[in-house]
Amino acid sequence: MERRLIIALPDEEIARRLCGLPGGVRIIVWDLGDPAPDVAIDLLVLRYMIPAAELRGLAAVSVTVAQSQTLGFDGVSEALPAGIVYCNAVDVHEASTGELALALILASQRGIGEAVTAQPRGEWAHAQHPGLAGKTVLLIGVGGVGREIESRLAPFDARIVRVGRSARTDARGEVHGMHSLGALLPGADIVVLAVPLVGDTHHLVDAGFLGLLRPGALVVNVARGGVVDTAALVDWLGAGRGRAAVDVTDPEPLPADHPLWTLPGVIVTPHLGGHTDAMAGRVDRVVLEQVRRMRAGEPPLNPVLGG
Amino acid sequence: MERRLIIALPDEEIARRLCGLPGGVRIIVWDLGDPAPDVAIDLLVLRYMIPAAELRGLAAVSVTVAQSQTLGFDGVSEALPAGIVYCNAVDVHEASTGELALALILASQRGIGEAVTAQPRGEWAHAQHPGLAGKTVLLIGVGGVGREIESRLAPFDARIVRVGRSARTDARGEVHGMHSLGALLPGADIVVLAVPLVGDTHHLVDAGFLGLLRPGALVVNVARGGVVDTAALVDWLGAGRGRAAVDVTDPEPLPADHPLWTLPGVIVTPHLGGHTDAMAGRVDRVVLEQVRRMRAGEPPLNPVLGG
Repeated sequence: MERRLIIALPDEEIARRLCGLPGGVRIIVWDLGDPAPDVAIDLLVLRYMIPAAELRGLAAVSVTVAQSQTLGFDGVSEALPAGIVYCNAVDVHEASTGELALALILASQRGIGEAVTAQPRGEWAHAQHPGLAGKTVLLIGVGGVGREIESRLAPFDARIVRVGRSARTDARGEVHGMHSLGALLPGADIVVLAVPLVGDTHHLVDAGFLGLLRPGALVVNVARGGVVDTAALVDWLGAGRGRAAVDVTDPEPLPADHPLWTLPGVIVTPHLGGHTDAMAGRVDRVVLEQVRRMRAGEPPLNPVLGG
Repeated sequence: MERRLIIALPDEEIARRLCGLPGGVRIIVWDLGDPAPDVAIDLLVLRYMIPAAELRGLAAVSVTVAQSQTLGFDGVSEALPAGIVYCNAVDVHEASTGELALALILASQRGIGEAVTAQPRGEWAHAQHPGLAGKTVLLIGVGGVGREIESRLAPFDARIVRVGRSARTDARGEVHGMHSLGALLPGADIVVLAVPLVGDTHHLVDAGFLGLLRPGALVVNVARGGVVDTAALVDWLGAGRGRAAVDVTDPEPLPADHPLWTLPGVIVTPHLGGHTDAMAGRVDRVVLEQVRRMRAGEPPLNPVLGG
């Protein structure tokens, strides 16, 4: 007979969506802010975008597997108590984040921000904007999100130059290594960041990186705020040297009085990356697969820490 | 010996760009607002987005071919004096307009307008937005602009349903006829207008059309303002029944006090469609081809009226 599994879900909404789980699975609703339940949790689904530091609270709880609803897991290794397997959310956000990257590129290149800003004044501000066709896009990061961005960029008649950790050739062609950035940045009209935040991508975009870009170049960040040195970005934008469209910031959320909000040529979106109405179904699919594996005695999907 | 051609260009900028024309071609700079030149103009390049009514002024001028810088030519047949061949600008704006259509779709579906509006307040307004993946896009118009939109939409995992004047099958699959709109509109999440403004597309989008759409549906207009009954659109938006993103309006420019500017869920861009930094080179290419044809005694490219 299969063992009875205990699954903790972070809110009533996801519990309702997953109410059709097979018999032998008991669902409890528990979020880390609430008093700890007095049961051993086999699978804990974490709240979407929970700050990594909150995971320290799991030290007082019995949890076998913690399933995140995000792809990035910067800061988790420092906070996760020993003995818990942490799984990230693969195939949940990549397509949505790729979609958002295109939304930010196109909005910036085609003057959507300027138009929206002029709307309350009833101002028909016709102007020429740079467009995307014919531009060189430096795509930094060739993982799941990078691939989704590249696929969506392909029909826009831009030149796509890919950069990964190390130089190689894959099925889609040439990938330049990070060491080539110094040579590639001066040729870029648009730089798109799609790397995980790890030791060597922290402040990848600093004053030196920005200083190599063309006047008016666009920096798009759909990765993590810490990939960019925010102070250097603010200086570069404030000097009128380029433009930015960022969905992630450091600090995040961006404080209300931060200069980045109101610099010219900047679009700030509030970490919308993966958050569309397609997300719930994709999260459910991951949870259902973890349950299936646990019931079958198989190892969990996408363990990235503590395994 | 080849005949000496006289070409009138509307401003000094385009004249500078085309200064390398072959010998035997004389360039004059003339716009319809200026006093008429006392020469017979072989090729008149019209100012970008010149109102059709201004063409009546050509009755007092000797012009053989008038080359427009726009693709649409609604209103021209009523204003163009007899004896002038009018050529529209094909392959100048289609790609840029397709690009803008995607910019408007993505900005609307991913909350870019809301984010830009919240920026001056320093407001981190995280919310879930609908996204484009999995949605049904009804693309009305399968000409040059429609094809450019379709190509760019293809990798976004949306369902694309095409509608043309009449039902047929082409290399890309099924095209529904306009008579099927009543059956297709209730299934659409997004409607994109990419038809020329002609008799039977005038007010194609009226109260009846809008009434068939789902709650929250998005109407994108990159065609001409007159394809939409603006009053019906304002009523529909004002009742909170759907959303719109329009690059063209009726009247155009939209007056400062028009309600469309400030209704919720609306993005208005000031007819940016074809106007990117890719445009100048494409206009020059058309003018150079017309000159080549005239010098070779060939008929002009893309005559649409007066031929």
